[in-house]
Amino acid sequence: MKHSIATVSLSGTLPEKLKAIAAAGFDGVEIFENDLLYFDGSPKEVRDMCHDLNLEIMLFQPFRDFEGGPRDRLQRNLERAERKFDLMQELGTDKILVCSSVVPNVICDDAVIADDLHQLAELAAKRDIMIGYEALAWGKHVFSYKHAWQLVKTINHAHLGIILDSFHTMSILDDLSELENIPGEKIVFVQLADAPYLKMDVMEWSRHFRNFPGQGDFGLASFLAPILASGYQGPLSLEVFNDGFRAAPTTLTAADARKSLRYLEEITLNRMAAHVPPIAPTQPLFSPPPAAEYKGVEFLEFAVDEASGERLGKVLEQFSFTKTGQHKSKAVTLYQQGDINLILNAEPDSFAHAFFVAHGPSLCATAFAIGEASSALERATQYGCKPFESRVGPKERHIPAVRAPDGSLQYFVDAGDGKRSIYHADFELQPTVNTLLKNIDHFAIGLPAETMDNWVLHFRTVFGFVTEHEWTLPDPYGLMKSRVVRSTNNTVRIPLNISENRNTAIARSVSTYKGSGLQHIAFSTQDIFAAVALVRSNGVALLEISENYYDDLLARFSLEEAFVDRLKAHNILYDADQWGGGFLHVYSQPFEERFFFEIVQRMDGYDQYGAVNTPVRLAAQTQHRKKSLE
Amino acid sequence: MKHSIATVSLSGTLPEKLKAIAAAGFDGVEIFENDLLYFDGSPKEVRDMCHDLNLEIMLFQPFRDFEGGPRDRLQRNLERAERKFDLMQELGTDKILVCSSVVPNVICDDAVIADDLHQLAELAAKRDIMIGYEALAWGKHVFSYKHAWQLVKTINHAHLGIILDSFHTMSILDDLSELENIPGEKIVFVQLADAPYLKMDVMEWSRHFRNFPGQGDFGLASFLAPILASGYQGPLSLEVFNDGFRAAPTTLTAADARKSLRYLEEITLNRMAAHVPPIAPTQPLFSPPPAAEYKGVEFLEFAVDEASGERLGKVLEQFSFTKTGQHKSKAVTLYQQGDINLILNAEPDSFAHAFFVAHGPSLCATAFAIGEASSALERATQYGCKPFESRVGPKERHIPAVRAPDGSLQYFVDAGDGKRSIYHADFELQPTVNTLLKNIDHFAIGLPAETMDNWVLHFRTVFGFVTEHEWTLPDPYGLMKSRVVRSTNNTVRIPLNISENRNTAIARSVSTYKGSGLQHIAFSTQDIFAAVALVRSNGVALLEISENYYDDLLARFSLEEAFVDRLKAHNILYDADQWGGGFLHVYSQPFEERFFFEIVQRMDGYDQYGAVNTPVRLAAQTQHRKKSLE
Repeated sequence: MKHSIATVSLSGTLPEKLKAIAAAGFDGVEIFENDLLYFDGSPKEVRDMCHDLNLEIMLFQPFRDFEGGPRDRLQRNLERAERKFDLMQELGTDKILVCSSVVPNVICDDAVIADDLHQLAELAAKRDIMIGYEALAWGKHVFSYKHAWQLVKTINHAHLGIILDSFHTMSILDDLSELENIPGEKIVFVQLADAPYLKMDVMEWSRHFRNFPGQGDFGLASFLAPILASGYQGPLSLEVFNDGFRAAPTTLTAADARKSLRYLEEITLNRMAAHVPPIAPTQPLFSPPPAAEYKGVEFLEFAVDEASGERLGKVLEQFSFTKTGQHKSKAVTLYQQGDINLILNAEPDSFAHAFFVAHGPSLCATAFAIGEASSALERATQYGCKPFESRVGPKERHIPAVRAPDGSLQYFVDAGDGKRSIYHADFELQPTVNTLLKNIDHFAIGLPAETMDNWVLHFRTVFGFVTEHEWTLPDPYGLMKSRVVRSTNNTVRIPLNISENRNTAIARSVSTYKGSGLQHIAFSTQDIFAAVALVRSNGVALLEISENYYDDLLARFSLEEAFVDRLKAHNILYDADQWGGGFLHVYSQPFEERFFFEIVQRMDGYDQYGAVNTPVRLAAQTQHRKKSLE
Repeated sequence: MKHSIATVSLSGTLPEKLKAIAAAGFDGVEIFENDLLYFDGSPKEVRDMCHDLNLEIMLFQPFRDFEGGPRDRLQRNLERAERKFDLMQELGTDKILVCSSVVPNVICDDAVIADDLHQLAELAAKRDIMIGYEALAWGKHVFSYKHAWQLVKTINHAHLGIILDSFHTMSILDDLSELENIPGEKIVFVQLADAPYLKMDVMEWSRHFRNFPGQGDFGLASFLAPILASGYQGPLSLEVFNDGFRAAPTTLTAADARKSLRYLEEITLNRMAAHVPPIAPTQPLFSPPPAAEYKGVEFLEFAVDEASGERLGKVLEQFSFTKTGQHKSKAVTLYQQGDINLILNAEPDSFAHAFFVAHGPSLCATAFAIGEASSALERATQYGCKPFESRVGPKERHIPAVRAPDGSLQYFVDAGDGKRSIYHADFELQPTVNTLLKNIDHFAIGLPAETMDNWVLHFRTVFGFVTEHEWTLPDPYGLMKSRVVRSTNNTVRIPLNISENRNTAIARSVSTYKGSGLQHIAFSTQDIFAAVALVRSNGVALLEISENYYDDLLARFSLEEAFVDRLKAHNILYDADQWGGGFLHVYSQPFEERFFFEIVQRMDGYDQYGAVNTPVRLAAQTQHRKKSLE
């Protein structure tokens, strides 16, 4: 399908926007009127610019508060339309969006409104212009696509059709069942936006918080599937008002925008296929290999130098990891325990070394164990990732990889090979000693605040992950937000954390790493008391939790005092969900003010992350830091 | 009256908060439970800390979801209360806030709720603890203070009273008329918060956007006056959940908090005095000299060095200012036109010089012409400003001044003296030549985003200014927000501008100045066409406005084409209000990427600032800048 985007969705001047839109591979644009008003060239110059960039001007928008106005204004409104038709002819576009009136004194009479729209369509016919009528969610009289369609159907004019907009429809939780009854040829244009669910005035929500398909909470496939089934042949077009995108780098946002439309095509196709009976789209849709079957985090790789590698290795040994391998040809070591594999890479002249130079000791690569690596790579490639070609030694295997938004590597490892084989090829392996820590339950990354949407889209598209509800949590010096991306089967879980304040733990971390960076790794265990006893005896320093926290636990939950005393003795935190699941977790003190480790025990199906305890942890970390600075 | 604040209102660790609260001169605190939970010391230690700081712990809060819960939970809830009573005794406080239940399964039966609260009050009586029951705006069954009061009155227990909270009452636009019927002795505590009016879910609004009295849109005096009339003898206490304050410097926020309570006392006293018949408060309230009668901006003073002073002087002469004076003893020059006085201060070893070194060519002082300067200074002093003592030469007059939040000076000039006299004392004066520019209509300041509330409170308290509705306006690279503070008689108007994005004009300016700085000065004229013709003939370069803007003016307004052509020829922008007022304004190109000048003509009572044209100006400035960088 053809892809389009409204110029208002991006930051910058109009020429900057158009260049970025063309570079992202869009077929066309909607010209948002204000972008034209602010531009210091003529409409003809905009037309030429688009022509040179191979962009079609698919729509001019918006034309506001036309229908149902005071009768003595109608003639002036028609003249206003004529002026805009002149402009459109200069621009070289033949479609205009007319949005439903929002002025308080609108005449709430369908006959009057139909007559006005008919007159406008007659004018448009003379210029061979097509009017697309759109119901705004906050329209005074017309605010539902069903009402707009009723009017368009009644007027039945060749130069009048409907424009469907996912935000205006889904924000008011409108019934979608009528969409399939609108004939494709009467749909002038389809505008798409996703959004997080927010409890606020719909106009404010619309103007500041929309985002791209896959970044929000709307199930957009349920909106688009019936439209595509109807035979709609026009473009899919994004119209996204977002405060962050208004300030973000234009080319990056445009690339995400394009990717989001591919994603929407994919999930819509899946939805149509899952329909009983299946619905065939009337034109081909983007259809990459399906998301991989994830079998966990295969390994995490740290960029270190010799000294920091030694210090980190010592900490891992305190956590009862065994240094099981030394790379056959490189300054790379492997630490193992249970199914956990951690690699410390101090090889000079390597990708990891470049990462170390830029970010210090940090996570430089993540490997995912998956059903079929080649298919995962193909999916990533179709979503625009460039495969990473690593330097491969004489006997070393090549592992397919792509780059995460921060430039770190994400490897796809065939789980079918068995976990030992990939290490056997490169390492002389020793047996592991301990198995109290079983798996990587989750690992959290701190991001620069403005990059959250970019990361979420990366994981949703390239990885086919799902996202969880966003948490807002207090740090002593501001707020942090946390959103988990995870595989549908829960074998991989990655909390993404941001803070818009300057002095929070997340913000300090982003500043230390000079970008995004690992916050913590949570290791799962089936016996947290044994695990904590072991690592403490090895010298691990745990994060000390306030005694007041434990007193409050007794007030909040029906727990035995003796049990809470045990928790308190080991600085273990507790959470429970409403279905009887429980969660025990404990934190280490940070490794060089960069990242820390967590040991977690999930009980009886607990499926969260103990977010309610995060403020306790953040306060304890602040107190620990202040003491260590004293 | 005694002043208190809830610890949740500030950023930092509990000890940091308490120190800042004490330093700001508060009498006591509400301990917000989470602050205690996160603190790594015992309740006894908190008690000792407060004692050492001379702070009374006036309230422990909150105790949630107690009344009307499932019957089989009641006993556990009473036990939970006992635990918290233990804690309160360790803390040494005897008042607890119990907020109305929000859980969905609450029993909506006043008899049940009254019985639960009665049982709680009986428990409290044994410990000599006082229960304050507060209606949360989003309480499931009890969400209005009237309902809470009905329950408290019915239960009629010596250890149960009501807590009144301005946010929970005014956010739901609750009727305030019942407040005066609550006897002061049944009011356990009064919590105060202001807030901007926002159309959003009340809980989200409450938890993120409250601010201090004077910073928001609530008319808090109408809430507090009947409470004080009732004989309430307890403290005024702030409980403010604000995302910005959570991240702001603790001591500065605490100082603003204290100042806001003084302000609230002042406006409440005024309200009580204005009541017919006047109501006498039962205890003394803060009562500084009233706000001055403002007669305009007396002068603006720029910090320059010799070279930049010469360049700026040349620009002012292009704007037809006359260099009327050279200071008798200092490197200070005066430019005048109409009633406008601009001073360029290049004196070494002066306040201005220090300002120049820190900020470059910039506005270092503002002088306000007012009815009685000594009274204005007294008011400022009572609001905590330290008078600035300037170096005064042999014949020079001393002008009282205080510091603005950015350290620049704000002079109070006795208007009665006549504008010439203050200049005659210091300058050898020449006559002015032109009078096309009459007055300083307004001047705008760009601020670091997080300082807006601090500036607003400064102008509201020290100056007695009022604030206007906040505008959110698009810059090509993000959003800016603008809020005008002005004297009630409109003779002084100061738009305060911020941007949370990095690359907007405002953000760049804040970075250039290394802090806040002058954005532009708007000169008023009664003949903009003549004024523009004159300044252009003098060589002033105007900001060029897109032709598309003028085409759209014709579509939007019923204007003659010939008139719009004249506007276009001079790059003059146009706005009109709904009452027939009109506004013409034109911008200069910027002075050294720092500030620019505007010429404005107000017609037929137009009282705004042409904010609708600000995005046009911002886009034109961006385009101008890009061209000049090419």
